[in-house]
Amino acid sequence: MRALTFQAPGKVQIEDRPEPTLSADDDAIVRVEASGVCGSDLHIYHGRVPVDPGFTLGHEFVGTVLDAGAGVTDVAVGDRVLACFLTACGRCFFCRKRDFHKCESSRVFGHGKALGNLQGAQAEQVLVPHANLTLRRVPAGLGIDAALFAGDVMGTGFHAVQSAGLTPGESVAVLGLGPVGLCAVQAAQALGAGNVLAIDTVADRLAMAARFGATPIHLTDDDPKKAIRAATHGRGVDLAVDAVGDPKALDLACRLARNAGRVSATGVYTERCEVHMGVVWIKGLTIHAGQANVVGHVDAVLALMTAGHVDPTPIVTKHMKLDDAPEAYAAYARREVLKVVLEP
Amino acid sequence: MRALTFQAPGKVQIEDRPEPTLSADDDAIVRVEASGVCGSDLHIYHGRVPVDPGFTLGHEFVGTVLDAGAGVTDVAVGDRVLACFLTACGRCFFCRKRDFHKCESSRVFGHGKALGNLQGAQAEQVLVPHANLTLRRVPAGLGIDAALFAGDVMGTGFHAVQSAGLTPGESVAVLGLGPVGLCAVQAAQALGAGNVLAIDTVADRLAMAARFGATPIHLTDDDPKKAIRAATHGRGVDLAVDAVGDPKALDLACRLARNAGRVSATGVYTERCEVHMGVVWIKGLTIHAGQANVVGHVDAVLALMTAGHVDPTPIVTKHMKLDDAPEAYAAYARREVLKVVLEP
Amino acid sequence: MRALTFQAPGKVQIEDRPEPTLSADDDAIVRVEASGVCGSDLHIYHGRVPVDPGFTLGHEFVGTVLDAGAGVTDVAVGDRVLACFLTACGRCFFCRKRDFHKCESSRVFGHGKALGNLQGAQAEQVLVPHANLTLRRVPAGLGIDAALFAGDVMGTGFHAVQSAGLTPGESVAVLGLGPVGLCAVQAAQALGAGNVLAIDTVADRLAMAARFGATPIHLTDDDPKKAIRAATHGRGVDLAVDAVGDPKALDLACRLARNAGRVSATGVYTERCEVHMGVVWIKGLTIHAGQANVVGHVDAVLALMTAGHVDPTPIVTKHMKLDDAPEAYAAYARREVLKVVLEP
Amino acid sequence: MRALTFQAPGKVQIEDRPEPTLSADDDAIVRVEASGVCGSDLHIYHGRVPVDPGFTLGHEFVGTVLDAGAGVTDVAVGDRVLACFLTACGRCFFCRKRDFHKCESSRVFGHGKALGNLQGAQAEQVLVPHANLTLRRVPAGLGIDAALFAGDVMGTGFHAVQSAGLTPGESVAVLGLGPVGLCAVQAAQALGAGNVLAIDTVADRLAMAARFGATPIHLTDDDPKKAIRAATHGRGVDLAVDAVGDPKALDLACRLARNAGRVSATGVYTERCEVHMGVVWIKGLTIHAGQANVVGHVDAVLALMTAGHVDPTPIVTKHMKLDDAPEAYAAYARREVLKVVLEP
Repeated sequence: MRALTFQAPGKVQIEDRPEPTLSADDDAIVRVEASGVCGSDLHIYHGRVPVDPGFTLGHEFVGTVLDAGAGVTDVAVGDRVLACFLTACGRCFFCRKRDFHKCESSRVFGHGKALGNLQGAQAEQVLVPHANLTLRRVPAGLGIDAALFAGDVMGTGFHAVQSAGLTPGESVAVLGLGPVGLCAVQAAQALGAGNVLAIDTVADRLAMAARFGATPIHLTDDDPKKAIRAATHGRGVDLAVDAVGDPKALDLACRLARNAGRVSATGVYTERCEVHMGVVWIKGLTIHAGQANVVGHVDAVLALMTAGHVDPTPIVTKHMKLDDAPEAYAAYARREVLKVVLEP
Repeated sequence: MRALTFQAPGKVQIEDRPEPTLSADDDAIVRVEASGVCGSDLHIYHGRVPVDPGFTLGHEFVGTVLDAGAGVTDVAVGDRVLACFLTACGRCFFCRKRDFHKCESSRVFGHGKALGNLQGAQAEQVLVPHANLTLRRVPAGLGIDAALFAGDVMGTGFHAVQSAGLTPGESVAVLGLGPVGLCAVQAAQALGAGNVLAIDTVADRLAMAARFGATPIHLTDDDPKKAIRAATHGRGVDLAVDAVGDPKALDLACRLARNAGRVSATGVYTERCEVHMGVVWIKGLTIHAGQANVVGHVDAVLALMTAGHVDPTPIVTKHMKLDDAPEAYAAYARREVLKVVLEP
Repeated sequence: MRALTFQAPGKVQIEDRPEPTLSADDDAIVRVEASGVCGSDLHIYHGRVPVDPGFTLGHEFVGTVLDAGAGVTDVAVGDRVLACFLTACGRCFFCRKRDFHKCESSRVFGHGKALGNLQGAQAEQVLVPHANLTLRRVPAGLGIDAALFAGDVMGTGFHAVQSAGLTPGESVAVLGLGPVGLCAVQAAQALGAGNVLAIDTVADRLAMAARFGATPIHLTDDDPKKAIRAATHGRGVDLAVDAVGDPKALDLACRLARNAGRVSATGVYTERCEVHMGVVWIKGLTIHAGQANVVGHVDAVLALMTAGHVDPTPIVTKHMKLDDAPEAYAAYARREVLKVVLEP
Repeated sequence: MRALTFQAPGKVQIEDRPEPTLSADDDAIVRVEASGVCGSDLHIYHGRVPVDPGFTLGHEFVGTVLDAGAGVTDVAVGDRVLACFLTACGRCFFCRKRDFHKCESSRVFGHGKALGNLQGAQAEQVLVPHANLTLRRVPAGLGIDAALFAGDVMGTGFHAVQSAGLTPGESVAVLGLGPVGLCAVQAAQALGAGNVLAIDTVADRLAMAARFGATPIHLTDDDPKKAIRAATHGRGVDLAVDAVGDPKALDLACRLARNAGRVSATGVYTERCEVHMGVVWIKGLTIHAGQANVVGHVDAVLALMTAGHVDPTPIVTKHMKLDDAPEAYAAYARREVLKVVLEP
């Protein structure tokens, strides 16, 4: 089958790869109908996340179940399904606590040996371990583009606000309006946020956030601190989401949050950095960091999509053919696109 | 000043009553601009809640602060404010736990001696004890009709779903589509409910629930159990709201809820009644009962209103003059109106 | 192998039964070292829960893993393990929400066809489905008698207080001091309850509750309402546990709870009964009903046991041989024993 | 009256100061029977927190109500009371959310102009604003030394674990065994922690933690990471409390916490510092920072003390006379004492 594989930093290509076969009792094989290209794929593309040459990329996908082991009870051959970007076993210490994102045997699709050695989904077929928890049926009436977001980007935007304990009527600032930030804006609205204030430097993204009901604030042309004080009786927001993953964004998030408020550090951090713990401590902030518990959120996210409370499809910039995936990566790297969907 | 007073069961009238005067340090006096007539007023009207003749009725109001004690810091003379239907002191055992609705010195407006001997708001002026907690400024841009709901009916609809722990994506059934049920439908939507199923026998109310995004189900023409099973993969809803206050409604709510689900007994109960504890126990239900914690909810409710997530104004059937209040009560008693707003 | 089987109401006997064999990938077989006789077994013994003649009883057990399928990863052959009284799959709608007690394919050990047709543990060996979730290793240093309680009676006592949201310093009344009630007393202490008030009519049970740190109150010789008002500044307890399962107990629990308090209906209900919904509503109570989520609690319960915060072993009245199980049932039926442990 | 006043860095002295007088409606005046010297007082003593010469120090006290305004309803003249170290109004935005520690008009006793200009309690009398929320009656049978901790040090130890969401059976590491760390050890036990691991370099403090039920770990002689892995199946603790307030402690806390675990940054931070956000993010940690919500916790803390679940009195190293307070400060500064109680 055809598959998009990593070759070297800056180089990916379509190769012929063997079709996957069932191994464990609860494995499934999915024929991919659509896969997304995501910011995380770019980290691999740029060589920042090491992956062996020839490894298939891609961790967002929708498709049809081709085959399934005897232990797969929640989806059946022929079902149209979507996947979470990582697997969970459902029975370890962490899964028993619903911390599915920390499953002791978790594997991430298309991220190489270090993250479970699980071939990716930018291919014609993909093997899905622990299919009962990793897959969900696409609800009737839900489009493929929307479904593609449920187990990754929208799950992450939802996590950014829900796992940080957003309660109805609270004010939220979202810093960084890439796909995750834009999904966080939608999720905040869906959960009944009062004010949602969206901060970025890119006009198109600010416009899309506004379309999703947020008040757009330009990071440098406007004065975010002043704007947020004005919108919150001078107190700061109840929740500030850092959807960037940069010390400056985290610092701004801490400054925008109110006393006893919360900060969601959703953007990726890998290094040491300076944090103004004095501000954090004096304000009495709680900082929620890390990857999203998408397996824990996906049922709720699908229900929000089905009810129309969130709809990420406007974030999809472009549809391309799987064979054109190398071009999609290049366009992504040039920041020309927000979200590309690949179809076989 | 003019005030609508109780006289005898079935009889209320406009009388001249003395203007209120400040007594405690944190009292305020409000010039009433609008007051609502509510289902609870009907209980008094029909003599089911005993009130002395000459007592001023009404517990929903919006107005302007005319005077305030030195301890009133959160609102000022001249502010347009709305009120909660009952007062809270902010410092007793219950208030310290945020169970403001169980405040040890709570008083309900316009409900006679048994509930705190606090004259009501269907009058030109009203005395407001503990004004810091009982009153809130009407947010800029929010209409009087909407504000009127914040401290009573919408606070109750919000309580019905939020205090019963509704989480995003969950399914909700609302039984009884009076003003509280309709507000519960809106609140459920605002909190990100997936399916909202609304049950009643009155076509107009079902139509309004549908307009608010719910799936209408006729209690007798349709088969609620079957309809809800169909909408929830056969499981039943995560949360069933009994907004009626009748053993049959409670029983149906218990039957519509899923295993390990929740029931919100929001409608008023005053008596013993038969409950199928076998169903409750086998299903492992949690039943949340009682009056709403409107003082605890009002800030969130106002934020939801301001953000446009809820808008109860379509529930207002009619605007009338305070002098015509006796006629409003009579129309209410004849079930001709859903919500009447009185203006001086 | 030998096994204790149901024959007819009032009649159980030791029979020779075939040894269990592995069927599913995540099955295990456990050689039983100790099994408990529980109040639920008595329901079967008396014919109130229908079970076919020849069915093996028993749902509390500790033993050693004899054999396990390839999918059993969390325990290994040779491990000493304890079991939960029912199984959970870890992947259905309910398990994904941690409502393991409502697992769509849940089976209860030793309760006949209606509850999953799973042979019981009062035998030499027992088949354990979904062994990863159903079994846990017995922590080093923990005695068999204590371990026997972790997946059933103490899990239920824990559920009675923890799932009803007990917070540190709160006051708790426990009605009914059978094994579950006594475990609820211990669990309440372990969670930092302030006052724990224990109500029963049996002197020995009251004495044991006192030994566990509770204030004993005789149901009829004392005046429970008065005693509890005196102990709670007149307010009533934050949480009242009905560990009886009788409408009178539920009624008393509702009367003993404070405004905005909670009631835990832990005792079994199977029928309709009269509930004073007026009291429930006026007080604004929350009623938590149903069977315990022991699979969800067992890790915490084992940690509490290991730390010495709870120790149910004083509740064990007697150790008997499996062959003498019929006598144990008879003694239980005569209410001569609180908890019997059977050893092969 | 006599009062201990700040003069200059390193210099405090007993001076004659005017007796306080009631000003607001809910003020009280307390005759001090005992006051504590606390680590925070040392910050002032050393000049790190600027206070005007002549300002009375001290923020922990127990005494008797001498006089009270008309709005003081929850305590009465003649009551023995304890105080929280800071005041809360009970009605502002933050108090309405139970974030009493962020009250908009909060004042800290004995901390100079910057923190509310409220004279301290190391004196014969002290003025107590918002007495309903700031004071509590000392429960019958509770000693003065214990009561002295309720509104400050034990409230802070309790906050460190409770506000960070400790659930029963969880493992806890406490870094830094000063009075707050030792109280956190006790609070963790009281809330049903499984393992409690206590880390410090001072033998006496480690011994006291062991006496309180923790496993003592020497920071440098032992290997904390290894010890904690061994105690937690290699996972790390559910909750790590940094009771030091130093970047190294925070870093260690983050390393000791398990994936999806929590860190409580209870020790004081005032500056920027380096944080390994990579570790925080990869692990998916939640960091809870800041001062304790003692007004919110004090009722629970008193209940835990009364029930005997916590007892901080062993932490009191020495009782001295108020007149000897300058000597107490000097001994504190020389680290010769853990907690000194001053009596007039």
